[in-house]
Amino acid sequence: MEAAARLSMRARPASSPNPGVAALLVRDNCVVARGWTQSGGRPHAEADLFDQLEGSAKGAAFYVTLEPCAHESQRGPACAEVIAEARPARVIIGQQDPDPRTAGKGIARLKRAGIAVDVLDDAASAKSLAGYLTRRNLGRPYVTLKLAVSLDGCIALADGTSRWITGEAARAHVHTQRARNDAILVGGGTWRADKPRLDVRLPGLEARSPKRVLLTRGVAPDGVSVINQPEQIAALDGVQYLYVEGGGETAASFLREDLVDELHIYRAPILIGEGRPGIGDLGITDLPGAHGRWHLSQRGQLGSDEFTAYLRTRN
Amino acid sequence: MEAAARLSMRARPASSPNPGVAALLVRDNCVVARGWTQSGGRPHAEADLFDQLEGSAKGAAFYVTLEPCAHESQRGPACAEVIAEARPARVIIGQQDPDPRTAGKGIARLKRAGIAVDVLDDAASAKSLAGYLTRRNLGRPYVTLKLAVSLDGCIALADGTSRWITGEAARAHVHTQRARNDAILVGGGTWRADKPRLDVRLPGLEARSPKRVLLTRGVAPDGVSVINQPEQIAALDGVQYLYVEGGGETAASFLREDLVDELHIYRAPILIGEGRPGIGDLGITDLPGAHGRWHLSQRGQLGSDEFTAYLRTRN
Ligand SMILES: NC(=O)c1ccc[n+]([C@@H]2O[C@H](COP(=O)([O-])OP(=O)(O)OC[C@H]3O[C@@H](n4cnc5c(N)ncnc54)[C@H](OP(=O)(O)O)[C@@H]3O)[C@@H](O)[C@H]2O)c1
Ligand SMILES: NC(=O)c1ccc[n+]([C@@H]2O[C@H](COP(=O)([O-])OP(=O)(O)OC[C@H]3O[C@@H](n4cnc5c(N)ncnc54)[C@H](OP(=O)(O)O)[C@@H]3O)[C@@H](O)[C@H]2O)c1
Repeated sequence: MEAAARLSMRARPASSPNPGVAALLVRDNCVVARGWTQSGGRPHAEADLFDQLEGSAKGAAFYVTLEPCAHESQRGPACAEVIAEARPARVIIGQQDPDPRTAGKGIARLKRAGIAVDVLDDAASAKSLAGYLTRRNLGRPYVTLKLAVSLDGCIALADGTSRWITGEAARAHVHTQRARNDAILVGGGTWRADKPRLDVRLPGLEARSPKRVLLTRGVAPDGVSVINQPEQIAALDGVQYLYVEGGGETAASFLREDLVDELHIYRAPILIGEGRPGIGDLGITDLPGAHGRWHLSQRGQLGSDEFTAYLRTRN
Repeated sequence: MEAAARLSMRARPASSPNPGVAALLVRDNCVVARGWTQSGGRPHAEADLFDQLEGSAKGAAFYVTLEPCAHESQRGPACAEVIAEARPARVIIGQQDPDPRTAGKGIARLKRAGIAVDVLDDAASAKSLAGYLTRRNLGRPYVTLKLAVSLDGCIALADGTSRWITGEAARAHVHTQRARNDAILVGGGTWRADKPRLDVRLPGLEARSPKRVLLTRGVAPDGVSVINQPEQIAALDGVQYLYVEGGGETAASFLREDLVDELHIYRAPILIGEGRPGIGDLGITDLPGAHGRWHLSQRGQLGSDEFTAYLRTRN
């Protein structure tokens, strides 16, 4: 299932607005076919797998990160139908689909065909579908907040200078993250101070540059979408993954509304001392209450900078 | 040599004010004897090794982290003399001794006896002798600055509350660090706000509680040494290793004078937002100039907190 979840990363972000799903067909402990959601959302991962498959799926194990769809469309038959006809021995599903057109119906269709079905509530699948599931469950995009900070947590000198805190490897990593998101947002302060291009400057990925969004009480510059308060991210059309790049006041605005799902911190081995703090006022008055909200999900070294990712601990 | 440097940690801090040295005797790729500086500084590591040795050192390789002393004392003969008489084939020395009574003379004595001598300028040995070498070369103790911070670099809420940011494992680690240092220092603000006991609260190590020092423009409380400016650490008697526990203004005072050799950062997975910054004003106005001063030397996980250590990069 983890291999399938990893594979599904290939679908993102081109599958948008459809979820990036992946499927694996396993026989005698070997993967005999794989598929993932194609550009624009079709073919679905299951159909893509059958397109690649040489021979039959009969008796094999079919892994898929999301419940196969139960609704026919003009772009193809329901995946649950196609799988049922191919007669694998088992279907292992990472996550049930909250889409009311499918929710449980895909599973029921497979069982009716006499196929064994396991629904795992698998964490890796959930993570790989985070944008889709967050949209469905919370009605808004999955939000990653990025900070590039000094060891003492500053994102700029007191005068606003922030070029550069982190090194080249960290900045290239930021560009790969931009390419994985459907939109990038900054606050008005950062827009005016840094005039950021907010594009993807990586060879071959230039075309992946996401939509640019500005949080401001003011008006929209050319080519940029505007929202006037953080909650309005819910209305950003076709955006499942939103990447918030600061600055400090914007970060605090999102955190206060509990709109951040993932924190990405790039930390350079420098001390600034009384620079701009990475995060503005959160209104925290109780230290025990600040605990238990975040847990480490990833860390690595990027040149001399450290990268750590934290996930919001929900329930 | 690295094994010897590791072994020398056993000498610290009891060997103070003498350097904590370690020695290994190796024959046919096996360690046949080891020694380290004993409590109060005597016996020296070399003498301690010979006390343990069964049989002869003849023809073996003698590893020692610091150049063997060349000066006799009432507490024993010169180590270079003792080694010369034992006739190992080679002596491998981690670091030359800057003490003018020895500097080069220990090496010369060994060579005169026809023994091959390698002086390595070994980094692990230098690190293990940091307190001694810093005293000798810079005329002051080796200073470790500790910070317990949130992800966004705060050491307390805006109202000064700092209990607790980090968890139990991190706090126990701090107590082992206290036990390794000869003195602990805090600033007047922290003294008044936290009334810290600054002792070692670990089973079996209570007796290791170091000297307590306060940085203040005011007067000395009972049982505490006082300095009125950071430079006065040079006069702290018998202190080779100083552990500075904050707060932010004190940290900045030490950093501005370039008096910090090592940074220990304990980072809890919490966000505070507009709390007390870990480090006060450093007067940095140029971002490129802030780079290249620190490099990562250690990292680890302590419960849910991250520990990272950085060393001051000196040319
Ligand atoms: N190192 C890094 O990772 C990094 C990243 C980004 C920025 N920075 C640095 O951070 C500094 C800018 O940070 P900052 O905190 O001053 O500014 P900021 O967060 O970028 O922008 C603040 C502005 O965002 C808008 N805004 C924030 N919260 C809002 C809300 N709840 N509703 C409506 N609008 C809201 C307002 O825009 P209007 O004023 O337009 O109404 C506000 O003035 C710059 O020095 C920049 O270089 C560093
Ligand atoms: N999380 C942590 O690791 C940690 C560690 C320590 C403290 N804290 C928190 O930090 C806060 C205290 O920090 P702070 O920045 O306000 O205070 P601080 O650095 O502890 O103390 C400031 C005081 O230190 C003395 N001082 C500083 N620099 C000096 C210099 N160059 N020459 C002479 N004296 C000097 C002065 O003492 P006088 O006023 O006595 O003259 C000054 O008022 C507290 O809330 C505490 O809980 C957190």
